[in-house]
Amino acid sequence: MSEAGANGRVGVVVDPFDAVLELGGAALRDAMADVESRLREITRIDVHSLGTVAAGGKRLRPLLVFVAGLGSEARVELSRAAAAVELIHSATLVHDDVLDDAPLRRGSRTVYAAAGRDAATATGDLLFSTAFTELAHNGDIAQLRALSSASAALARGELMQRADAWRADVTLERYLKRCELKTARLFAAAGELGALVGGGPPLDPFGHAVGLAFQLLDDVLDITGPAERTGKRRGTDLLDGTVTLPLILARERSEELRVLDLRTIADASAAEGVCAAIEATGAGEEARSIALELVASAKRELPANLPQTQREALCLMADGLVDRYA
Amino acid sequence: MSEAGANGRVGVVVDPFDAVLELGGAALRDAMADVESRLREITRIDVHSLGTVAAGGKRLRPLLVFVAGLGSEARVELSRAAAAVELIHSATLVHDDVLDDAPLRRGSRTVYAAAGRDAATATGDLLFSTAFTELAHNGDIAQLRALSSASAALARGELMQRADAWRADVTLERYLKRCELKTARLFAAAGELGALVGGGPPLDPFGHAVGLAFQLLDDVLDITGPAERTGKRRGTDLLDGTVTLPLILARERSEELRVLDLRTIADASAAEGVCAAIEATGAGEEARSIALELVASAKRELPANLPQTQREALCLMADGLVDRYA
Repeated sequence: MSEAGANGRVGVVVDPFDAVLELGGAALRDAMADVESRLREITRIDVHSLGTVAAGGKRLRPLLVFVAGLGSEARVELSRAAAAVELIHSATLVHDDVLDDAPLRRGSRTVYAAAGRDAATATGDLLFSTAFTELAHNGDIAQLRALSSASAALARGELMQRADAWRADVTLERYLKRCELKTARLFAAAGELGALVGGGPPLDPFGHAVGLAFQLLDDVLDITGPAERTGKRRGTDLLDGTVTLPLILARERSEELRVLDLRTIADASAAEGVCAAIEATGAGEEARSIALELVASAKRELPANLPQTQREALCLMADGLVDRYA
Repeated sequence: MSEAGANGRVGVVVDPFDAVLELGGAALRDAMADVESRLREITRIDVHSLGTVAAGGKRLRPLLVFVAGLGSEARVELSRAAAAVELIHSATLVHDDVLDDAPLRRGSRTVYAAAGRDAATATGDLLFSTAFTELAHNGDIAQLRALSSASAALARGELMQRADAWRADVTLERYLKRCELKTARLFAAAGELGALVGGGPPLDPFGHAVGLAFQLLDDVLDITGPAERTGKRRGTDLLDGTVTLPLILARERSEELRVLDLRTIADASAAEGVCAAIEATGAGEEARSIALELVASAKRELPANLPQTQREALCLMADGLVDRYA
């Protein structure tokens, strides 16, 4: 499950979530195994869905559901919630790959590459619907509200990103809103679902902050690399016309970057040059600091009445997200 | 709302559902107006969604929700259910238009044509998610089960149709399964939702049968035309490689059609010729009879304990679907 393994990269990266699993013990490991078989069972109906889910990933959102519900006896309900969140995430990935003409994801062929855009579009729709079918079995309307609201937010974030493409003057506020919609809301839903099933104090604010930080760090990594860590060249967002936090901050510090028209970035090598210019302003480091502060405050503001083991597991999980970008 | 009006065709076609609205009185007319404003309000967040919904359509599924819930005082709940069903339907149309490179639908530019496939794919996803958000407000898990199950069925039907494309030897059984998934299940959900909100006897079998008949009649119309009735040339399904009931039946009657390779149909004019050959076997008429029998038995098998006005409205609605293809 490590990034290194999943992407077939050279070099050993210790899975930052091993510590969480360690702390959660056999129950958490069993739960994570259970959600894998559940995902396979759910998507068995369609070969493309199955392939998507089998290709795996970090399963960050299911892990957050389980950690947010740690100590609960309602294991089946937690597994359903974890599977539902991952199915929504998978659905958006399948559709993203269609839109990006992407041949590979996580080292496997995308549904788009394997079956064409027609089948991939329908497969994404199927995964969306199946997420709700799965969660409906839990019989709790509050859970379905959390999931559908996050799912709508994802699509709105995608629309916002495409509406803002190539606009170098995107405001910080608008960028943060996009990250909230695209990423933070589903993490918030994962925290909320775990807490709803487990009956503990609310954890959607924690999920939201951690999800936001996750997106910020991902965006920083695209600017700062290095490629041997991320498995792809720097500056792919720039080439897609997607403006992220480092560039937004760097534009305030550099006249050269302030007047840059993204459409003039001709190729990957030119994008590398822009990344270096952004990094030279210190904006990459500043963006990273903002993300780290989000994580730190999320940890500080965890509900006071959480059981100690669960608090530790949530903090380890937050640290794991940061470590990934250390 | 008549087909003629919506498509800007010449010639007056009396809206077959006027009789249903007449019978339902002011309450039903108000309800249908209410669902229109609700759909506009829900999709206000995004210009493409709004355009899709504003482009309108026959609103058959919302009408079925209302007629299935006729007499209920829970007007807001019925409107939410009606809007949710229409949002799922709209989501699939938006994605279908992307896959079909369709410039127009109901006389308006498609989201795909207006905003590109990226925005259209995300818009479809947004409409899917919003349907569940809307229905979740009703607070009834059984309603969400009905909708998610129908929504998953739609996507599976789409995958099935694309998997079977160009296969002239599709069996009758497989064709009927496809129609069930693609169309009947959402009509069944509309009947089920109305009955769930209204507290009356189950109407999903009625919705299922009527939805299946609707798909069969639509498929027959593509073979038998005439174009001035449908607003498009005959044989579009054949050109897409989609085998439907008339051809399945005709292949048993005609050696020429049994050996036909759909990929050899070069253009619209050739497709017209195949349509004429199919019709000459009587298969179009036979397919139409099967659909009419489905509708007749759906009417016969309506629950015995339905209020008389509601029974009449359901029968009028079923007749309206048939009249459309008279």
